[in-house]
Amino acid sequence: MTAFKTLNDLDLELMPRRQRGRLVNSLSGFKSANLIGTADDSGTLNLSIVSSVVHLGSDPALLGMVMRPPVDRERGSHTYWNIRETGCYTINHVPHTHTVQAHQVSARYLEGVSEFDEVGLTPVYRCGFQAPAVEESPVRIGLERVDEWEIPMNQCRFVVGQIRWVEFPETAWAQDGYLDLEALGVAALSSLDGYHTTKKQHRLAYAKPDVYPPESMEDFLSGWQDN
Amino acid sequence: MTAFKTLNDLDLELMPRRQRGRLVNSLSGFKSANLIGTADDSGTLNLSIVSSVVHLGSDPALLGMVMRPPVDRERGSHTYWNIRETGCYTINHVPHTHTVQAHQVSARYLEGVSEFDEVGLTPVYRCGFQAPAVEESPVRIGLERVDEWEIPMNQCRFVVGQIRWVEFPETAWAQDGYLDLEALGVAALSSLDGYHTTKKQHRLAYAKPDVYPPESMEDFLSGWQDN
Repeated sequence: MTAFKTLNDLDLELMPRRQRGRLVNSLSGFKSANLIGTADDSGTLNLSIVSSVVHLGSDPALLGMVMRPPVDRERGSHTYWNIRETGCYTINHVPHTHTVQAHQVSARYLEGVSEFDEVGLTPVYRCGFQAPAVEESPVRIGLERVDEWEIPMNQCRFVVGQIRWVEFPETAWAQDGYLDLEALGVAALSSLDGYHTTKKQHRLAYAKPDVYPPESMEDFLSGWQDN
Repeated sequence: MTAFKTLNDLDLELMPRRQRGRLVNSLSGFKSANLIGTADDSGTLNLSIVSSVVHLGSDPALLGMVMRPPVDRERGSHTYWNIRETGCYTINHVPHTHTVQAHQVSARYLEGVSEFDEVGLTPVYRCGFQAPAVEESPVRIGLERVDEWEIPMNQCRFVVGQIRWVEFPETAWAQDGYLDLEALGVAALSSLDGYHTTKKQHRLAYAKPDVYPPESMEDFLSGWQDN
């Protein structure tokens, strides 16, 4: 019998700040690790890492992300202010071969310092798009900011972007539209600092009430082998 | 030399709907798989699966999730209407031992049918909380709805909940606050239907500008062994 720990909202409120941060950041489950590439109007590059990118819709193709409450530009929030200034940014998936470099961009570098140079990642540009992408990333997405909300309880910002272009290795793209992130070596993140590789379990077919429970496992599979 | 495929917004717009859905759902990276437990005011249970839960803040502890544009209750959107009616819901992590059952709750069951019964998962209740949790889930969270936005471009809803209680096996909780989702067998999701197990790579220490590049890998590690 597994012993369960139960915490209520007051337990969470009274917990030391860093311990609470690591716990609550674990509670959404596994996450993506994404590098956000931006430039300011004078061409200074910036790179940051977020774990809050979420799919908002496919038509139009929208991705949202959560950003901390912005402070004055001299004090930080360079990604946020660059997006406000230029209207565009890139989202780049982190491969497990570059998790150390990607994590390091979260260090507090001064304004005017390019995290690309500091950590050793390579900016690449696409078709007149002002924001730099990351060459070492296998999935690179260019977005235009189309909306933004302030979260009233903590002043964080939720930035909505529409995908203007995307690029990825063609070999990883299945005919049905599925992009094989695992074959591309994309890392999964847990809490604030845990990096994981993945192992395929199965792809499951579109669920229908009348094929359950199954006569055979094949009714369920749309791809890969079941473990 | 890897051949990259580039698509722009028009390419995405012209793509067949299902193919585009699978691709764009891949583009946020690895995701969580979460079962949402609710009840209506007459006690009928509902369970749905989402891949859009995102951390919004730790103090107060907030999680957001994206829901499709609500339709009339007779036609569907039972989770959405139950949350509106009762103000509460649970988020339950999917273990890789139960991905088939979890995926099956996305089938279009009629109103009044409990997905718990249909797929074979067990409702559990906590301290007077109206929404049921999932006994087979290793991480169960009770939330109260505190805010909601409509995404103007597609009428989806972004529901914000505050954590009222959470429970998980105590053995998986590290002293620094980190909850070991991998030890709990929590699945990671890709696109709409890909389920993955994970393998630890490393936990990285809080990043500082002056310890990079490192003299040794130990400067970077806060936990586990590096691969």
